[in-house]
Amino acid sequence: MKRYVFMISDGTGITAETLGHSLITQFENTKFERLTIPYVDSLKKAEHAVEQINQAFEEQGIKPLVFTTLIDPEVRNYFKKANARVFDLFNTFIGPMEEELNEKSSYTVGKTHGVVNSKLYLHRLEAIDFALSHDDGVKTRGYDKADIILIGVSRCGKTPSCLYMALQYGILAANYPFTEEDIIGFKLPEVLKPYKNKLFGLTIDPQRLQQIRAERRPNSKYASPEQCRLEVKEVEAMYQKEKISYINSTKYSIEEISTKILAASGLQRKI
Amino acid sequence: MKRYVFMISDGTGITAETLGHSLITQFENTKFERLTIPYVDSLKKAEHAVEQINQAFEEQGIKPLVFTTLIDPEVRNYFKKANARVFDLFNTFIGPMEEELNEKSSYTVGKTHGVVNSKLYLHRLEAIDFALSHDDGVKTRGYDKADIILIGVSRCGKTPSCLYMALQYGILAANYPFTEEDIIGFKLPEVLKPYKNKLFGLTIDPQRLQQIRAERRPNSKYASPEQCRLEVKEVEAMYQKEKISYINSTKYSIEEISTKILAASGLQRKI
Repeated sequence: MKRYVFMISDGTGITAETLGHSLITQFENTKFERLTIPYVDSLKKAEHAVEQINQAFEEQGIKPLVFTTLIDPEVRNYFKKANARVFDLFNTFIGPMEEELNEKSSYTVGKTHGVVNSKLYLHRLEAIDFALSHDDGVKTRGYDKADIILIGVSRCGKTPSCLYMALQYGILAANYPFTEEDIIGFKLPEVLKPYKNKLFGLTIDPQRLQQIRAERRPNSKYASPEQCRLEVKEVEAMYQKEKISYINSTKYSIEEISTKILAASGLQRKI
Repeated sequence: MKRYVFMISDGTGITAETLGHSLITQFENTKFERLTIPYVDSLKKAEHAVEQINQAFEEQGIKPLVFTTLIDPEVRNYFKKANARVFDLFNTFIGPMEEELNEKSSYTVGKTHGVVNSKLYLHRLEAIDFALSHDDGVKTRGYDKADIILIGVSRCGKTPSCLYMALQYGILAANYPFTEEDIIGFKLPEVLKPYKNKLFGLTIDPQRLQQIRAERRPNSKYASPEQCRLEVKEVEAMYQKEKISYINSTKYSIEEISTKILAASGLQRKI
């Protein structure tokens, strides 16, 4: 039997989703059905959300879990009417924090993922533009400005990691893919040499690479076991010879690859 | 005086950062200095983190705030030694959840942002590839496959929103920018007509648009007040005439624009 899980927020719902998801993944024997209701910033919207929760309760005959990040006390209290187990992710900590900081919280709705200031927005835009215009080695001219340059064989995770680092951390991340021609008797390409201190390598298990490449070009040489093995072997040897830091992305999500790169390279977030 | 805030996690640190950041933004009179320490998955790393926390305490003479998402009880308990106010974001809820679900939690480290399965990773890759190859109207051929097509004037927030929706929600999002030539006596471009039910419009206040465009091309006609006003006016009139749903992105972050688009269009997340 499945358990409904509602993430209820007066803002985007991202905070409730993030912690709520973290918590439910710790319970492996329960099948969860997740639903997010964002922008619940009035009593009317709260009423509508509680109706949905109660419907889920009727349907399953078991209390849904409800994770809330709600600031307004009236809206928040309304969820006590729900036939559900409510976890107040926000207020649980606000009281103790007020005591520790000796300051009243401002009770302002929707601050977390709002535009804190337009400088921040412009910086994120710049980082995204940079990642797009320096994706896949299309432009090597801006490498002076790059905070980091990811290198690796095609489809090892460079592009998603650059985009993630740009969006979430405001980091100017370029990436440069090694082509098939680069691979044999591998040397660090000339264009990268002046930026050696910004290089960070990715590698991946050949089997996994093959699987990812087959999605793009099935039955190609590009996706063949031999080609994948060869490229990975040569590139790893080059990283070691050139003493370039690298990580193996095989078992990691985009978030993990990105945060591990940050941790390993010592780069600080810019936003 | 500033307060140090540490986000300590055995995984990426994203969950601790997200809720920790939500909470501290409610305290406007305190200046916070945020530090994330990810991948604290051994006693040795916990010792090192506690040293950093205690150093911050020595420096400021006031207890840092520490937000933890740690699974391992031994690692978690070690933070009791820190001269800090520790908020256990995880365990605070796990106990009550165990009781409600009548199930013991699995106490598995790093599940939240890990690769849950390779299908999920492949789906995210596909969504990112789609956003990149259908950015800025470069390719209109794949619109059949698109979940949504964002439209709007240049620099109103289409590209960041598409990338965010791809990365976070696995949504296939294309975007099509109106060019200067499109604008006068505005009509919906022919290429978009077959996909009218997938269109979602963005608009933006002319002043803000001008500011963003000036970052890219200062002192250009493109960034002039007249041009920005004209484009926004024409595009909004077209949305209304064609009955295309749209939102004004001016005051919103990338997260807010994306989640508002989802809410308004009824699109469901794919991951």
